[in-house]
Amino acid sequence: MYKKITAGIIQDLAGLVGPGSVLTDLERIVDYGHDEFSLREIARLPEAVVKPGTAEEVAAVLRLANRELFPVTPRGGATGLCGGCVPAQGGIVLSLERMNRVVEVDAANQMAVVEAGVTLGDFAKAVEERGYAFPPHPGDASAMIGGLIATNAGGSRAVKYGVIRNYVRGLEVVLPRGEIVRLGGKYVKSSSGYSLLHLMIGSEGTLGVITQATIQLLPPFKLTRSLIIPYADLAAAIESVPLLLQKSITPLAVEFVDRDVIRITEDFLRLHWPSSLGATDLLIILDAATEAEMDRLSEEVAAVCLERGAIDVYIADTAKKQDEVLQIRSKIYEAIKSGTVEILDISLPRAEIPGHVKRVHEIGVENRIWLPTFGHAADGNVHTHIMKVRCEGNRMVPLPEEAWRPRFEAVRAAIYEDGRRRGGVVSGEHGIGLVKKDYLSLSADPALIALMKGIKRTFDPNAILNPGKIF
Amino acid sequence: MYKKITAGIIQDLAGLVGPGSVLTDLERIVDYGHDEFSLREIARLPEAVVKPGTAEEVAAVLRLANRELFPVTPRGGATGLCGGCVPAQGGIVLSLERMNRVVEVDAANQMAVVEAGVTLGDFAKAVEERGYAFPPHPGDASAMIGGLIATNAGGSRAVKYGVIRNYVRGLEVVLPRGEIVRLGGKYVKSSSGYSLLHLMIGSEGTLGVITQATIQLLPPFKLTRSLIIPYADLAAAIESVPLLLQKSITPLAVEFVDRDVIRITEDFLRLHWPSSLGATDLLIILDAATEAEMDRLSEEVAAVCLERGAIDVYIADTAKKQDEVLQIRSKIYEAIKSGTVEILDISLPRAEIPGHVKRVHEIGVENRIWLPTFGHAADGNVHTHIMKVRCEGNRMVPLPEEAWRPRFEAVRAAIYEDGRRRGGVVSGEHGIGLVKKDYLSLSADPALIALMKGIKRTFDPNAILNPGKIF
Repeated sequence: MYKKITAGIIQDLAGLVGPGSVLTDLERIVDYGHDEFSLREIARLPEAVVKPGTAEEVAAVLRLANRELFPVTPRGGATGLCGGCVPAQGGIVLSLERMNRVVEVDAANQMAVVEAGVTLGDFAKAVEERGYAFPPHPGDASAMIGGLIATNAGGSRAVKYGVIRNYVRGLEVVLPRGEIVRLGGKYVKSSSGYSLLHLMIGSEGTLGVITQATIQLLPPFKLTRSLIIPYADLAAAIESVPLLLQKSITPLAVEFVDRDVIRITEDFLRLHWPSSLGATDLLIILDAATEAEMDRLSEEVAAVCLERGAIDVYIADTAKKQDEVLQIRSKIYEAIKSGTVEILDISLPRAEIPGHVKRVHEIGVENRIWLPTFGHAADGNVHTHIMKVRCEGNRMVPLPEEAWRPRFEAVRAAIYEDGRRRGGVVSGEHGIGLVKKDYLSLSADPALIALMKGIKRTFDPNAILNPGKIF
Repeated sequence: MYKKITAGIIQDLAGLVGPGSVLTDLERIVDYGHDEFSLREIARLPEAVVKPGTAEEVAAVLRLANRELFPVTPRGGATGLCGGCVPAQGGIVLSLERMNRVVEVDAANQMAVVEAGVTLGDFAKAVEERGYAFPPHPGDASAMIGGLIATNAGGSRAVKYGVIRNYVRGLEVVLPRGEIVRLGGKYVKSSSGYSLLHLMIGSEGTLGVITQATIQLLPPFKLTRSLIIPYADLAAAIESVPLLLQKSITPLAVEFVDRDVIRITEDFLRLHWPSSLGATDLLIILDAATEAEMDRLSEEVAAVCLERGAIDVYIADTAKKQDEVLQIRSKIYEAIKSGTVEILDISLPRAEIPGHVKRVHEIGVENRIWLPTFGHAADGNVHTHIMKVRCEGNRMVPLPEEAWRPRFEAVRAAIYEDGRRRGGVVSGEHGIGLVKKDYLSLSADPALIALMKGIKRTFDPNAILNPGKIF
């Protein structure tokens, strides 16, 4: 159905974005064929990589794609975990990397306007320099704004400050047929027709190319403090969470972490985690405006957790201790990455976490696959890692491929099935992309998937934009 | 195009929902032909009113409507201000009033499950009895949950706690062709395909009939306190707001109110508003966990506002004083209702409020129409009231119809045009309905309106659900 990228099309593309912004040589395009998903069998080499510098150039490329009928796969920082930016049906990869300007930090309206190719790290820096905070904290600093919005990225601070969706006030989007439109704007509330803004957020680059975003900023956090709270079992840890919230204590983050991965990460980073007791820790990060308020909150948290069965409460109260703890938590992914086949991202009712994690553990034992599981305790987003290594003390020992590969699919299916049974969905913050497509039906009725496909046809009748993703 | 409701269809409907739940006699259906919009020329009598008791009954009615091709207009509390639940093209009104159960308050997941016909008042009561809060506060207690979601209602607390959208975790929806589907669920994060949940929110009953909602609850507010802060001019008042936010003070609400309407409302309610100085007041409501925290916040707010030019700071620190102030603010609408033609609902960048309100004032003077304007200072949602009365001291004096009617359209158009010029949209929280249809093009490109129509066709190919609304 799609046409190949011919020399003539390459020439046209070069005319649209400049010859230096169209790549075709293998050594330069090979990195544009994959994201962070570990199994490279899903990778596919693009026929060309195009790097537009403006929304008008994006629009011109999309109009050409509609005329010549070739696929266009938008790409940000490529830190995704589901193959969302893999050019699955060939055609061109449209990299937003050159559109990396922080256009404006608007103090009066407390919003920033940024191009899609600004990295999370650069954005956070620009915003902090101006005395603001951007609370969502979805991990990788090299992720780009456009991609974060396209996957509705979350992160550990969603419990108090919500996911990316809650911060996106406006978007400049190039629609698949090449119209440049603005959704939302520098305002907070709208009830003016269907929210195409919210439809675009999380649509994984299949309904339009995000070229610019208007983002709500918050005042900076005054004080933060981390508490590490070991428990003998996960159920008691999770049951502490609603008790905190009910006392009007809403932490910045409530993470649950597993003893095995903490040991491996301590060793990987040569840093020290304050607790070695119990089976699981809660990591609770508090923010407050004054030291007195922080002390009161810390005491209340400690009292609730100890009452509910916590073994101890460690407070990382110096900047150094706090930094160590947060580094360990944020680098777990990196520490175990070499042994990970796939990171699942099930989102389910918070109260179902203990039962789900217990079932995951059973599935691991039944299949002899190590399934370290941790995640966001207050918002019910659980990251089970399907591993191709065993855990021995603080070391990962590789398994032969025949020990994990034949069981991988069955393990994944069993975990998803348990998530579905508990009222969850396959992805909380990573998206569906290529890798989770087969499981979307566990999260959405056939009638809903049919509606999604109908929406896709309305936006993109020639199916040129990121085809083969989501459904 | 549409068929009339015949005696045979009435009989079919009675078979589906029970004969007692189908109304056809004039004196009982006449109230189902309008909402709270003041000009009754937009009202239209339904051919019948149908009151289903379950989602299955809603589904059966919609299937019948597709077979017989008659319009179905869903209706909640009918507290809307734009004719959204008026059966504009005839057919039946589908009233959700019988589906009024609070199904569950789930403490472990901190969410409530409620049917669409539960009123905001009953919902708030049920939630408070269980020790939770539902922060959005969109005014009318007789509004129903389904309608609040269908218009993405906002209210004065959006500055700190966001609009209804931020609280809706799941919906049970009957799609136009009669499929009963679930969008979202008892979880917080999802990135699992297009967010049909967020598309449904704010779609004004044109894409599906909301029958049940899963709503996030928050812990109760511990302490609240109201500050009334008079200013000589609105610009200085509005400029105080970002200064507060930048100091990490996020009030529960920041309202600006106009001296004239305060006087009329004081008189209407026979209550006393603490300030009579200046031209405009900020009403700032703070929430805090402890008295000490509240005192610190109040002092910081007072210091910022006085520094920025406030004339004085009144603190309503007793429950009685606070109650009086909040009653006056919340009853302004009622006090001036008899003189109001239309309440506008422009949402625009916060920093544009002073310029916009100044222009509104000029438009009022030019056209000799009183245009009292107040609203939500921190989120940029401005409610200009187009009046058919003059203000004399604390009295409203009716104008003859020929004094306001010929100018009404020009006044409205001029105000909308100024809102658009400043980057705003026609509705922040009321919706488009019938009344604002002609102005939707000021908020959305033709390409976007075409996409909205395409989405509508995908969901509702026979156009039976709430036809004639939004676009």
